[in-house]
Parts: sequence; C-alpha cells; structure tokens
Amino acid sequence: MSAPKKVVLAYSGGLDTSIILKWLQTEYGCEVVTFTADLGQGEELEPARAKAEMLGIKPENIYIEDVREDFVANYVFPMFRANAVYEGLYLLGTSIARPLISKRLVEIAEATGADAVAHGATGKGNDQVRFELAAYALNPRIKVIAPWREWDLSSRTKLLEFAEQHQIPIAKNKRGEAPFSVDANLLHTSSEGRVLEDPGVMSPDYVYQRTDDPVTAPDEPEYIEIGFEKGDAVSINGEALSPATILTRLNELGKTHGIGRLDFVENRFVGMKSRGIYETPGGTILLEAHRGIEQITLDSGSGHLKDSIMPRYAELIYNGFWFSPEREALQALIDKTQEYVTGTVKLMLYKGAARTVARWSDYSLYSEAHVTFEDDAGAYDQKDAAGFINLNALRLKLIATRNAKVK
Amino acid sequence: MSAPKKVVLAYSGGLDTSIILKWLQTEYGCEVVTFTADLGQGEELEPARAKAEMLGIKPENIYIEDVREDFVANYVFPMFRANAVYEGLYLLGTSIARPLISKRLVEIAEATGADAVAHGATGKGNDQVRFELAAYALNPRIKVIAPWREWDLSSRTKLLEFAEQHQIPIAKNKRGEAPFSVDANLLHTSSEGRVLEDPGVMSPDYVYQRTDDPVTAPDEPEYIEIGFEKGDAVSINGEALSPATILTRLNELGKTHGIGRLDFVENRFVGMKSRGIYETPGGTILLEAHRGIEQITLDSGSGHLKDSIMPRYAELIYNGFWFSPEREALQALIDKTQEYVTGTVKLMLYKGAARTVARWSDYSLYSEAHVTFEDDAGAYDQKDAAGFINLNALRLKLIATRNAKVK
Amino acid sequence: MSAPKKVVLAYSGGLDTSIILKWLQTEYGCEVVTFTADLGQGEELEPARAKAEMLGIKPENIYIEDVREDFVANYVFPMFRANAVYEGLYLLGTSIARPLISKRLVEIAEATGADAVAHGATGKGNDQVRFELAAYALNPRIKVIAPWREWDLSSRTKLLEFAEQHQIPIAKNKRGEAPFSVDANLLHTSSEGRVLEDPGVMSPDYVYQRTDDPVTAPDEPEYIEIGFEKGDAVSINGEALSPATILTRLNELGKTHGIGRLDFVENRFVGMKSRGIYETPGGTILLEAHRGIEQITLDSGSGHLKDSIMPRYAELIYNGFWFSPEREALQALIDKTQEYVTGTVKLMLYKGAARTVARWSDYSLYSEAHVTFEDDAGAYDQKDAAGFINLNALRLKLIATRNAKVK
Amino acid sequence: MSAPKKVVLAYSGGLDTSIILKWLQTEYGCEVVTFTADLGQGEELEPARAKAEMLGIKPENIYIEDVREDFVANYVFPMFRANAVYEGLYLLGTSIARPLISKRLVEIAEATGADAVAHGATGKGNDQVRFELAAYALNPRIKVIAPWREWDLSSRTKLLEFAEQHQIPIAKNKRGEAPFSVDANLLHTSSEGRVLEDPGVMSPDYVYQRTDDPVTAPDEPEYIEIGFEKGDAVSINGEALSPATILTRLNELGKTHGIGRLDFVENRFVGMKSRGIYETPGGTILLEAHRGIEQITLDSGSGHLKDSIMPRYAELIYNGFWFSPEREALQALIDKTQEYVTGTVKLMLYKGAARTVARWSDYSLYSEAHVTFEDDAGAYDQKDAAGFINLNALRLKLIATRNAKVK
Repeated sequence: MSAPKKVVLAYSGGLDTSIILKWLQTEYGCEVVTFTADLGQGEELEPARAKAEMLGIKPENIYIEDVREDFVANYVFPMFRANAVYEGLYLLGTSIARPLISKRLVEIAEATGADAVAHGATGKGNDQVRFELAAYALNPRIKVIAPWREWDLSSRTKLLEFAEQHQIPIAKNKRGEAPFSVDANLLHTSSEGRVLEDPGVMSPDYVYQRTDDPVTAPDEPEYIEIGFEKGDAVSINGEALSPATILTRLNELGKTHGIGRLDFVENRFVGMKSRGIYETPGGTILLEAHRGIEQITLDSGSGHLKDSIMPRYAELIYNGFWFSPEREALQALIDKTQEYVTGTVKLMLYKGAARTVARWSDYSLYSEAHVTFEDDAGAYDQKDAAGFINLNALRLKLIATRNAKVK
Repeated sequence: MSAPKKVVLAYSGGLDTSIILKWLQTEYGCEVVTFTADLGQGEELEPARAKAEMLGIKPENIYIEDVREDFVANYVFPMFRANAVYEGLYLLGTSIARPLISKRLVEIAEATGADAVAHGATGKGNDQVRFELAAYALNPRIKVIAPWREWDLSSRTKLLEFAEQHQIPIAKNKRGEAPFSVDANLLHTSSEGRVLEDPGVMSPDYVYQRTDDPVTAPDEPEYIEIGFEKGDAVSINGEALSPATILTRLNELGKTHGIGRLDFVENRFVGMKSRGIYETPGGTILLEAHRGIEQITLDSGSGHLKDSIMPRYAELIYNGFWFSPEREALQALIDKTQEYVTGTVKLMLYKGAARTVARWSDYSLYSEAHVTFEDDAGAYDQKDAAGFINLNALRLKLIATRNAKVK
Repeated sequence: MSAPKKVVLAYSGGLDTSIILKWLQTEYGCEVVTFTADLGQGEELEPARAKAEMLGIKPENIYIEDVREDFVANYVFPMFRANAVYEGLYLLGTSIARPLISKRLVEIAEATGADAVAHGATGKGNDQVRFELAAYALNPRIKVIAPWREWDLSSRTKLLEFAEQHQIPIAKNKRGEAPFSVDANLLHTSSEGRVLEDPGVMSPDYVYQRTDDPVTAPDEPEYIEIGFEKGDAVSINGEALSPATILTRLNELGKTHGIGRLDFVENRFVGMKSRGIYETPGGTILLEAHRGIEQITLDSGSGHLKDSIMPRYAELIYNGFWFSPEREALQALIDKTQEYVTGTVKLMLYKGAARTVARWSDYSLYSEAHVTFEDDAGAYDQKDAAGFINLNALRLKLIATRNAKVK
Repeated sequence: MSAPKKVVLAYSGGLDTSIILKWLQTEYGCEVVTFTADLGQGEELEPARAKAEMLGIKPENIYIEDVREDFVANYVFPMFRANAVYEGLYLLGTSIARPLISKRLVEIAEATGADAVAHGATGKGNDQVRFELAAYALNPRIKVIAPWREWDLSSRTKLLEFAEQHQIPIAKNKRGEAPFSVDANLLHTSSEGRVLEDPGVMSPDYVYQRTDDPVTAPDEPEYIEIGFEKGDAVSINGEALSPATILTRLNELGKTHGIGRLDFVENRFVGMKSRGIYETPGGTILLEAHRGIEQITLDSGSGHLKDSIMPRYAELIYNGFWFSPEREALQALIDKTQEYVTGTVKLMLYKGAARTVARWSDYSLYSEAHVTFEDDAGAYDQKDAAGFINLNALRLKLIATRNAKVK
C-alpha cells in the first residue's frame, strides 16, 4: 500500500485520537480531515473542533455532525426488527454503530478528495474489522489506516511521551491508565478490559455508568406504552416521536429502573473470548416491546423463519458485514415480515427488567373466537384435530413399525 | 378405529379426569387402568388412589409413580443443554412433560395388556398433539382416546350433570367455573383461558401461584453458585444434588425472588394464537446459568451452530415431536457440544431476574493472555488482523467494483 | 360446512372431472362453473367446452384460459431463482402449478358469486393440500369441495357405473384402469401409481412420455446459450423470448436429448413415501444454467445464504404454502440476491444431461487478475493469507490447548 | 515465529516439493522429514524415496504410507453420509484429503520430535487454509511453513534456477510451464489455472484425465447394484468390499461411462472466485446411490434436517474446518440419521450420468399398503386429510382475514 496523501480520521477529540491525528501527520506527512460524530455518546462535540484546529487541521477539514436520527432510523431500528441478539444475549450496541461511521468517513473522503480513512481501533478487537469491511464495501479503492496495528506506541508511557513531544494537551485524569475501556452511543455503553479481564471476578459497581443500580431503583413499577408501525417504535405513551427521541426517552426510563445491564463473555470474530459489561437501557426495553407486538401481529410461519435466521443475521452485524449482500438479503426478508407489525405494547419497568404485560393491535392475528375456552360458535371444529394428528403421526408410526421389525 | 378393550388413562384424581374415567367405562364398557404421576406439580397423589378405587378401578390397575428424577434428568436437562426457548421467550414447561407421560402410558399399556391410552387434553390445544404423537411414535398400534374430542359434554353444566349422574364427588370449589386453566410440573406452572383471554388486558395478580411478586420480593440480592458438568447442573453452592433436587431448590430460590414470570402470546401448532402466563422460577435461573457457563467453555463454532438450530429444536418439542428421529439427531448434535461445558456460574437473584455475574472453569477457553489490554507477551500478533481483514474484504471489494461498473 | 350453492370446479374435460361435475350437481344440487386451464399440459382445451356444455354448464359459466405465460413468469421463474429442489432432486413440477389453479378458481368464484371451489385430487396426496391451502389463503371464507374424500365411488367399477348412470361419455381407452397416473404441465410430467408402486422394480420404458430415451438420443452433443437477466432466462441462442416460449423451447431441446428423467421416492406432506417418475426436460436445463450464471455473478455470502434456506423454501412449495407469508419473505430474500444475476451460459446437451461448459457476464465477480497463476501485478498479497489463517486458527488452537489440558 | 529446527514436509517427490525440501534445508538449515502418502492419486511412491534420499534425507526420516483405506473410511464416507456438495455441485474431492495429510504430518512431527510441518500450497488457494487449520487444531504449538508465501521464487524461471543451482533433477517435461495445475486422490482429480482461467471459454478436451469422454463412452447402459450399511457403501453387485476398494471400482465404472465431470466456478474461502474442472467418477455414482437408499430408509424429518444443515457442513469442509467442534457436532447429527440407511440401490450408468432406477431394503419406510392407488384395506383414512388441511389452513385463514380487514 502506497502512503496516503489525505486521510479522513474518525476523531473523538480525546487523547488517543489526537495522538493518532498527529501521528498521521508526522508518519505520512499527509493532510488530515477529521470527522466527529454525535452518535449519542453523551459528549460535547465542539471541543473537538477547537482541538482539531489546535492540532493544525484546516477549518474546512473539520466535520462535526449529529447523526443520531440516521443512526437510529437506518441502523438500530432495522436491526431491532430482527430481534437480533448475538450469542443469545448481546444487543450489538457497538457493532451497529461502526458501519455508519465508516459510511460517513468514506463519503467525506470522496467529498474532500482524500484517498484514505483512519480509525482508532486496536488490532485485537472486532471494531477494526467492522470499520474496514464497511469502508472497503463502500469504496474498494479506499485505503484504511489502523495506527494501532502499525505504530510502536505499544505502552501508555510511549503514548504519553509522543503526546508531550507533539504538544498534545493531556487532561490530568488521562495521565493514569483508565481502569477499563469504554465505548458509548445512543444504543449502549460497553466497558471492557483491565479490571474486567477475569470473568470469574464480579464487576465492580463503578463500571456501570449508564444505568442506575436495580437495587436503588424506584420501589414502584412504572408502566409505559410503546406504539409500533411496521416493526418500528413510533410513540411512547401515545406521543409520536422521532426514532432518536424514542430511544433517548427509553434510555432515560431504562436508566431510572436499572434496565439493560449485561455481564457477558463473547466470542470475538478474531478468534478469542472477551468479557464485557454492556448497558443497553432503552434497547432492552425496545427488544422486549418488539417481541410483544410481534406476538399478536406476526404469524408463526414468518416468526419461526425470522427466529431461525436471526443468529446468522446477528453474527453478520457483529462480524462487520452490515454492508454485505447477504445482510441486505436477510434484511429484505425481515422487512417483508414487518408489514403488519403495528400496534401497542404495555410494559412494566421495575428493578432491572422490562416485561410485556399487555398488547393490542388493529392488525392482530389473535382470535379470541378460536381460542376461547367458552363456546366458540363453530369457529373451530375439534374433530379436525384428530385428522391433523393422525397425518402428523403417520410418519412416526411407519418409523416405529420399521424399527420394531429390524431390531 | 374399533372400540378399545382396556385403556390406560392419565389420571390426576381431579374432577375432569374422573369424569373421563367414568365416561370411558360407560361409553366403551372397557377396563380402565389409571396412571398418576408426580411430576412435581405439587399435589398429593394418594388421594388419586382412593378416588380411582371408588370409581371401580382394580388395585392392580392403579399406577402411581414419582417420576421427578426421570423428568428432570432425561427431559428437562437435555432440553436445557440446547438453551431451548420457543418463540424467543417460552421455556417449554408444559411441552416437555407430555412425552414422559405418554411413554409411561404406553409402557403400562404394554405391561397390562391394554390396547389404548387416554388423556384429558382438549381438541384445541397442543397437548393432545404431544400426547398422541409420543404415544404413536412409541407404539404404532396403540389406540389413543381423546374424550374431549369425542363426547358431547361441551359445557360445564353438562359435565357436572354427568358427574352427578355417575356419583363422582364434586368438590365445592369445583362447582363454579375456574377463572383460568392451570398446568403444573416441576419445571413450571402455566395459566391460560377465561380471564386471560384478552391479551390486551393485564393479567390479574391472583393468577400467579408459583412465584412471589417481584415488588414484594426481598430488597437484597441473593448470590448463588451453580456447578455444571457436561452441560447439566450438578450442584448449588458447592453441594452436589440430584437433578430433581437441583430444580426443586432453584424453584424455591426463584419463587422467593419473583423470578420467571412470563406473559406471553404464542402460536399453537394447531394454528391459532393463545395467551398464557408462565411461571418457570428454577428454569429461568437454570437457563441464565447454562448460558453463563457456555460463555467460557463453548467455542464460537459450536455455539453459533447450536444457536442456529435451537429454534427448530424448540419447535419440535413444542409441536410434540420429542420422540422423533429429527429431535434425536439434533440432540446428538447438542450433546456433542456439551462435552466440556463444565464449571461454575455465580448469579445474582433479585426482584424478578437472575443475572450471571461471574463464571469460572477448568475447561475455560477464555484466554486472558490473548485478550488483555496489557502487554500480551506475543500471544497475539496484531499484524495478523490486517491479513484477516484484507481477505474477508476481498469479496466485498470485488462486489463494490462490479456494482460501480454496471450502475 | 353448509352445502355449497355455486361451485367453481377445476375441470380438465376428462372422465374423472366430468364425474365430479355431475356428482356436484346431483349431490349438492348446486350450480357448477368450470375452469379449464392451459398450463402447457399438451391437451386441447376446446373439447372441454363442448363436454361441459353437454353436462349442462351454462356458457357463461365455462372458463377456458391459456395461463402459460402467467405460470412461467410468476411461479416457475421465481422458484428457479432459488435453485429449488425437494429432497435433493425433485424440481417441484406439480407443486408449483397448484397455487396458480387455486388462485384462478378463487378469483372466478369471486367474479361469479360462487361460494365454493372443487378439485379432483385424492385424499392421499399432496395436491389436495396445495389446492386447499392456496384457496383458503386467498379467500378465508371460501368452501373447498374435495369429492374424492367425500363420495363412496371408491372403485373403478363404481365410477364407471356412476358415469353411465349420468350419461357421461366414456372413451374406450378409459374403460380399463390406466397402468399409472399422470400429471402434466409446461414444467413437467409426473407418473405414479400402480405399475410404479414397487420402488424396487425398474420403471417400464413406456412410462416416459415427455422425454426421448437417452440411449436413442442423438449421438452428437448440442450446444446452446441461455441468456439471463436478474435471475430469469430471457433468451436462447441470442433470441429474446417470452418466459413460456423459453420453457417450451427448452422442453423441446430436453426431450430430444433425453434430459430430465428422475426415478424418485419422496416424502409426502401427508406422511407416507411415494414413488414417482418425473420428466422435467426444460426445467433440468434451466436449473443447470441458472446455477452456471450464478457461479460468476453471485457472491459467496448471498450464495451460501440462498443454499442454506433453499431446502425450507422447497419444502414450503412442496407442502402447499406458496401463498404464505414465510414463502413470500423467503422470496424477498431470494429476489434480492438476483439483482446482478445477468449474463449468458453455454451448455452441452447430450444423452440425458445438460452441463454448463462456459459462462460470461458484464456483471461477473470473477477476477482473473486475482486468481491467476501468473503474476497478478499486486492484485493479491499472499502474505495476507498468513494473518487470515492465524486468526481463523486462533480459536482452534485455544480449543486444542484446553482439550490437552483437561484430558 | 522462531526458525524451525526440524520440519515434516508433505512431499510428493515431484519438482515443486523437491524445491521446497531443498529450500527448507537452505533457508532454515533445518532437518527435513518427508511424508509421502498414497491417497489414490495414481502415482508410484517409491521414486519419492529415492529422490528424498538423493536430496539428503535420512532413511529414518522418510515416511511413505498407503492411507487409502483410512482416507475413504474416515473422511470420504462420513462426508458422503451428508450428501455434501459445495455450492450445489462440487463434491469436495480436494478439500476432504487435506485434513488427513495434516493429521499424519502432525503425528509424524510428534513421533520424530519435529517442531514444524510444511506444505506446498500457494498463498492464493484454499489448500493452505485447510492444511494449516487442521495442523493447528491437532497441535496448537506446531509451526507451519508455507514456502510459497515466504520465498521470492515467484516465477517459473526462478524456480528452475533454484533447482539447477541445488542439483535437483528436472524432468524434461517439467521445463515448460504445465498448461494447468492438477490435484488428484482416490476421490477426484481437479484441474485449474492457465488454460482454464477464462470461465467463458470451454475447457480443452485434454484437461480431462480421469474420465472418458461421454461421447465415446459405451453405447449401452450398464446396471450395477450398490449395497449400503448405516449410510456407507459396503458392496458392489453383491460382493462385499473394503471402502477403498469400493471407491476404486466405482472410479473404474465411472471412468468408463464418462461420469463425474464438472466445469465449475466456485467461491474460495480467501475471497476470490476460481474456475476448476473436477472429475469425480466414483464419488458421483456414490452420491446418487446414497441419495437413492436414503429415499426409502430415511424419514422426512431426518432427511429435511440433514438437507438444511448440509450447506453449512460442506462449507466447513471446504473452508478447512474438518477438525473443528462444529464439524464434529454436525457429524454426530448426520451419523445419528444413518442408523437405518441400509439396503441396496440399482443404478444405470450411461454416457456421463448415473441414475437410480430401483432400491430396496429390509429397513424401508416405504409402505405400499398406505400409498397404493388400489384399496388400502383401511391403512389410511382419507377423511383425516380434511382435518389435517383445516388446521394447517387455520393460520392462513386468520392472516387473510386480518389482511382483508386492514387493507
């Protein structure tokens, strides 16, 4: 790979990406464009502008954007239509944010004539894969620079030396090593590393930043109603809201009630196991609610089909294949099933859990006339069940007869 | 089907199966053998003996058995190895008990020379299917009598008239219609029908019988440790216990902390949707713990494979195909993956939820040496990731190049 | 089910459906509408009109339609996009025709004010299921009459007596029992029953009606080129043709070269095994060609995904669930993958087989620059493979290390 | 990776692996052990011994083994139990041989105290992945040397120079570049590269080495019978034969009749498409026969399950994951289904194709009593079908009713 001439960097404004910024300038002598996105991580973005300028980035090369609505509408919600969880439990909060960032990096590269993009993910994790697969899928000629895989700043000491040497300001609380590493966006906060590295040791309480402790959460349950249209949440307690606003509100509710904590050991795409603490307050409520509305509006054929392909869909997102033909084909399937997933779910929020307690819909497939224990006025002929069972049993009888004969 | 001569009836001792007993005698003039099983439903069995005798059953035709260990060891535990849930949430508590009952019915029929078995399930539900498919799979020549599909006792009034006419004692509290229908065993209690028939109306509190209300559950979390061997729970807090004892203890713990409540609308095999309230206190803890131990002992290849076939496995159990070649083939796959699923999980029980907080194992695949944020002493070469990503990206680049060319 | 007042009958003009027509009139005293479709079965339709009139059907109640283009464009081609085969080998020729017939029956019922439809399939086969599921899916209030399951004309003798009694003309060659039963349409001819009922006995030569014997087929191979657009065949040897015309031409080519014979034992949906002789001359060529064009235009992610869901898709069609949400969701997935399946395949037709021998496309993903054994000018860096393998191996090494430790 | 001290090389005795042998000696100064296996590739092995000795390998370091029975019994047959084909058509002939070679390389390394193994696969193909994943899975501490990824002998000229420089004899016909590259074993011969690199150009006739041209094959069909036990072929025409003998005989038969040619473009694991000509004469017959015997002995539940996981199983083998927990778990499933796959298949071999024409078994599930068009003496009650259909339709009716209401 020839040296890059102009690089678009995913820039947070923090110490690490500031070091990367400077390293790109010094290592490659290249022009740097910064992209700082508000994905709902809960940090001010404007300080990143000042810092980028201080590090010599031209004003026209500083991109700062609020992408929260794009994030929720075009990434989070499509994924939630699938009830996607990775390895049974993880709601893919980090995985789903990476493709959006790469998409904007590539678009900005094309707009600014840059030939490369750069990210601050390490060589051990999944995020490097997600950033790079997305970038290459969107622009097969783009170069991707992953400084953590290239440089020799392999210890905290070397990083700080590099920062000092290049006049990068170091906040006092960044001198020492953080006790764990954090990623956050509107969907979740993840924590991993250092104090969390032994999965046999309980996580310290101070790791949790996004949710209140269930033990100190309110002693009274709170009930809410979430409205859905075609599989996407559109309202809370009857109030129509934009996608990002809905997720923000659900995050607040989830935080209050201590909902969405997960202590998890997962299999990374790069081959090792890793332990993370995930907090997904709003997403956990949303998943429960989406399942609740599907219960009455989705037929079993579609539902079982969705369930059977979900693990593969979740694995694709986890592994970084959001922008792949197979994810898009699966999405076509999933979206097709959501045509009538419209209605309202009532949930109880209490001490760490969200539970569906009622659901209704004009699109409901639930037929009290059929299921009732009372007289069903002929809606269902119980005698049909005998034929149904007999033909389902025919194969089993033939097997049993054969097995008895040959044994 | 010719008339049965001798029938083994799944007999609870309650009013409904007593009516069936008498109806079999009067309708077919046949000898009746009763089978009453302790599956952990929490009822005394001996009253069933007296009642059967009173209804004219010969002592040698009364079978009363404690099958709890068989139930947990050979049905519940194999199913939990798969992390089986139906439609995302239901732990299959009713489904998994039916095959065992049918197996004993058929065995007793063979032992007593009976040519038929009978059950008390209605023609609208899944249980008839489960009872009958299991019976036919085990003995293709057996007859199965399902009185609810045959007789004309189609209302409570008619049933009570029949009972009075045949001197079947009616407990006072059985005169009126029960507000909902209940099934229970060591794994769960289900409630459905009548007051629960509108899924848009919250379930009344009095429906819950097996778990305390999370709101009144203890204000302090309780921590327990569950030991596993080859995928099955073998100990609680270091104490080795039999399968049924483990589930019993977990049920007590789950009850206390209000764990395992589920308000659910599901798709029945017979084609309609149905709403049920499920309480699975111990099973909910067990599922969480099993996932926890798999997190460190199961590799991603086996784990993702299991996840992908789980919905089909769960559907087979739900639909009544426990005794089918395909369920057995899937079980062979699942059991093969459990060879090293051995170790200990620590869980927090609190206010309705069980959460894994730590896990350890001599069989762990978790490698702190590889994953650490610290110096890994060469365990992992970050440069490998570049090649890994490049080859995973090659296909995506070729696609992007093609698409750009033809668009 | 109350008695039907007006019935639309799938009417071939043959003896059996004429008997059904008369039986409907006499049994139910109802008005009958006939629907006779040209699906490419190779029979004249106009005699059916005369016969229907003779049996008392009003002219305005006689529907005769050429549905071949609809059949190929909207049923056969979508199915071939999936490379659908049932149980590894069967191209679903009968299964795919039934939904179309039911759709027209229901539409004609709605147009003529009929409250029922009727078909001539027996109670043992799959076709009854396919006709009826399709009808109910399209009109949940329609009645379906299946005379073979209702009447007592259970022998050839009784049928002929009924025909004579009602002045239904009996062709001389219909007096005796046919040696096997046949179904045909533009996609295939199936033969089953009687002389074919022992799967251990070779089929007699005279069963084959649609394909020449490979042994007497031309001694020289013939080469053809099939053009595809978005997964559908659009031309033969450069000549653009309509869907039905393409299939007709391929049938002629396949017939000449003895292509598409299959001696098969399959599992019916109703639970028994059945042996059939299938002849699918054009379809067999088409399947091979479609696979050939996908080889260069479809990426592995989409391709493997399609392959993995194909058995379920084929099973749905076989079982009669064409008009189901899950088939439509799978179709959405499949169609999404076909966006670039455009190009040309060259095939060799010879003595019973069609083989792809070359394929090319403007949409090809094949990159000679990457794959070449010659100097690839840096298109591919072989060193990437080391990292790719190392990370794919990491998991396996950790497993091996663990297993060695605990054994 | 530190330099290897002693290397076990997969050695064919040909020019390329002789160059590798010498390169290992000169590059690393290490001791070399050669392993030459008879996998049925049809070459004499003893010349490899002389050549190895000439290149300075100690006699005790030369391993020459006939592994054909091991290959067929423990690799080919288990794979055929699954009816495994990659991307619809490829019988995995190369893929399945690699794990066995790696296993012996690792075992010999352990026996001789070698710390590394080496193979002659290039950095572009799948074989490097297969060799290395297998080796690492069996011995996580082994080093694997892949000279083609390491050295700079990047052209034919350089290779020949190296050979001459190191006194490696060069057969006259090896001076020029071969027109294509070949791999062979008892299951198949593959050809790829150079003259085959344009998939739009027909393969020259001279590429085919393992099968006669169908056009010149015998004009008369030949009929054979293959006996199976538990899914494996055990006899031909009634003669019990060892696994390798059976495959050898089937290869002879297939060769004569021109069976098993495949012109294919596939997706390599490393991300590019590749065109190969495969000849699998015996394997093609065996696959057809295995499907034939499963048709009557395997029930639909097991069969459909097998079909649905087959693509994943085939992909695992193709990608080199034979020695992985997930392949072994899938194998457990597959083997479980083969318990009764015992019986005999009759096939017609003719002009390029093998077709099942009859099959019989003591373990047959085919019931003429049930399927017959004649009177079935009550084996099957056609009225059952009405109930079966009604309950399968119930869901579809509820959907149709809902959709009509909301549209």
